[in-house]
Amino acid sequence: MPDVTSPATALAITPAEVAGVLTAVRERHPLVHCMTNIVVAGFTANVLLAVGAAPAMVENDQEAAEFAAIADALLVNLGTLSAETARAMRLASASARRHERPWVLDPVAVGAMRFRTDLSAELLEQGPAVIRGNSSEVLSLAGAAGAGRGVDSTVGSEAAIDIARELAVRTGAVVAVSGAVDYLTDGTDLVEVHTGHPLMTQVTGVGCALGALVAACCGTGAPPLLAAAAATTILTVAAEESAAVSAGPGSFAVGLLDALANLDEQTIESRVRAREDAR
Amino acid sequence: MPDVTSPATALAITPAEVAGVLTAVRERHPLVHCMTNIVVAGFTANVLLAVGAAPAMVENDQEAAEFAAIADALLVNLGTLSAETARAMRLASASARRHERPWVLDPVAVGAMRFRTDLSAELLEQGPAVIRGNSSEVLSLAGAAGAGRGVDSTVGSEAAIDIARELAVRTGAVVAVSGAVDYLTDGTDLVEVHTGHPLMTQVTGVGCALGALVAACCGTGAPPLLAAAAATTILTVAAEESAAVSAGPGSFAVGLLDALANLDEQTIESRVRAREDAR
Amino acid sequence: MPDVTSPATALAITPAEVAGVLTAVRERHPLVHCMTNIVVAGFTANVLLAVGAAPAMVENDQEAAEFAAIADALLVNLGTLSAETARAMRLASASARRHERPWVLDPVAVGAMRFRTDLSAELLEQGPAVIRGNSSEVLSLAGAAGAGRGVDSTVGSEAAIDIARELAVRTGAVVAVSGAVDYLTDGTDLVEVHTGHPLMTQVTGVGCALGALVAACCGTGAPPLLAAAAATTILTVAAEESAAVSAGPGSFAVGLLDALANLDEQTIESRVRAREDAR
Repeated sequence: MPDVTSPATALAITPAEVAGVLTAVRERHPLVHCMTNIVVAGFTANVLLAVGAAPAMVENDQEAAEFAAIADALLVNLGTLSAETARAMRLASASARRHERPWVLDPVAVGAMRFRTDLSAELLEQGPAVIRGNSSEVLSLAGAAGAGRGVDSTVGSEAAIDIARELAVRTGAVVAVSGAVDYLTDGTDLVEVHTGHPLMTQVTGVGCALGALVAACCGTGAPPLLAAAAATTILTVAAEESAAVSAGPGSFAVGLLDALANLDEQTIESRVRAREDAR
Repeated sequence: MPDVTSPATALAITPAEVAGVLTAVRERHPLVHCMTNIVVAGFTANVLLAVGAAPAMVENDQEAAEFAAIADALLVNLGTLSAETARAMRLASASARRHERPWVLDPVAVGAMRFRTDLSAELLEQGPAVIRGNSSEVLSLAGAAGAGRGVDSTVGSEAAIDIARELAVRTGAVVAVSGAVDYLTDGTDLVEVHTGHPLMTQVTGVGCALGALVAACCGTGAPPLLAAAAATTILTVAAEESAAVSAGPGSFAVGLLDALANLDEQTIESRVRAREDAR
Repeated sequence: MPDVTSPATALAITPAEVAGVLTAVRERHPLVHCMTNIVVAGFTANVLLAVGAAPAMVENDQEAAEFAAIADALLVNLGTLSAETARAMRLASASARRHERPWVLDPVAVGAMRFRTDLSAELLEQGPAVIRGNSSEVLSLAGAAGAGRGVDSTVGSEAAIDIARELAVRTGAVVAVSGAVDYLTDGTDLVEVHTGHPLMTQVTGVGCALGALVAACCGTGAPPLLAAAAATTILTVAAEESAAVSAGPGSFAVGLLDALANLDEQTIESRVRAREDAR
């Protein structure tokens, strides 16, 4: 394990803490302002509703700033950009910062095309609470933010740990790197999440829904690292529950929503333990 | 019960009348021009297909007016606005009025932001056949239309009855207020729909799909109050059917489409009766 | 059978060839650039993921040309146009042509409105590898392309065979006409696909997903007629598999994704044989 990860323990965040965040979401119904893509908007809303959050999709440049000021948290997902949504994202993230609302940046496909790479660099200046992406996106974003690293789409999430930590230090954001193992860091501490299932990659929008779930957990007032780790654990444990009873990706996606709605601390505990025992 | 509701009986519309409208939808396949939001577009189309209607989503300002003139009914849902869709909605509703096509206004989140509040007030002048919203939206719309009432997002559907009746009288539209109990009025008569299930609020787009279903029923030529009441009963009875066999919100949404496709008069009758017996 | 179809045998493409294309998709994970409509974007992505392809929705005019140059295939579906997506489609199809990437045109609702009829005629000049539509769309497109034939929305797919062949000859594209029986032609040969199920028409986006699947199969390097026939067989056989265990259109759509993920050569073979034996 590289030196940079030494301050972290293998599981700094307990199942009880995860369950505590889930309970807070269910009790407070945080209003999550979602600026996300047309592919996953419906699934994202359903994931948020399944855990008890209140999603609202507002993406036009007339309303985005106004709504970011009243929501409990904001998600900015670059999946399907247009000129108008890009404008609206700039306005909304600036408004979230001004009104001290936590916001989450999901830099989908950053690095692949200049329009979204430039936009990402601009948005970073509005101080997201959490940046969530796969390892390629995190590496690209770090490059866009001036770290001078190139893009490598073939790296695993482990390889992105050092870069993630640098990016966290430079931006002040928690950086969450999704993969077979999820790595989350605030620049000092590192949390690993080992739960999850390969079917998560065979359904569109599971990663995007994770970004939204992180925003919902931030919207309860939980500190960003706890919020991000809780959201990741909640989604990956529910994915294991669903995969256990699914016949394929279609029934897996349906079962994931059911599992999120039915998730309890005992299930979280036993699934996390099972992963620990297997290592 | 307030005085304003006295002209209405508790169930002015019978299960047989509801089944009659459903049969008309299945036989005539009304073409429903949907201008709706990116979150629920797919689910809305599937709800319409499940009952036998023919959905078509046309939202650009080049085609909206042209298509509104040939469709059997139009749905205007303000869920996710953009400058272009707002323009297209003005053109389409004006075209629907000019060509005497019934159209339904679903003023999602009106009152929360000025852009959509102003747009709603403008659209009201094109004479919708039905306005469908939750109580907050109906109250906001009434305010936007000049009634001078404030917005109160905490009110139940019952509290909106008086306002709904005023709004119906002023606009000439049937006003349908969704909630645990649905209230529908043309300004004179009041219809209550008691069927339904809490899972309807844990899936995105069920309310939006109701607006589309109202448009489909209007598209058969049924009078607006009957069309709106039939659509509400059809959706809420199917929701009860699905909830009875669902493990959570994911399987509920899937089962709702199955239940809509399989719905018959006997099921409507027995579910409506069961609610009456329970009161 | 009309003279124009005489060069074709009833089943020029074998189940083994279909399975070969499916295997190629699963092994090569072709990157499919989808420009499709807001109603079906999520379902389209899930269909592509279920067969092992890699979908990416890029529809803005800043990125479309750049992305079309790096994707393995491009889908242009006219379902929900806007001024921006129309511009982006022109750029992307031109880029695909320039970079010799196969692209598929799905002219949804062409003929019904001038905006998309004009756009289709323009796009045709960029040399799509495959044109996929129902018989009305193919007839309208042939008219838009100068064949001088009118639109007839009541014709079955059989009636469109002659027109499809002419269109194929004139454009150099394979033309795939969807219906109870699917007809596919490159202007010389004709392939018929008899598998399928009526539930395919009760779920939104099944036809649109077929266009995407054709693009995925083209993205493996398969010749367009084989790619289109394989995609059609894969989707219709999976539809039969799903329909056999579905309670309605909701569970059918979910089961279709499961069936696509689980599809094997033996299932394709037995379903195709069963249709042949029934004729």
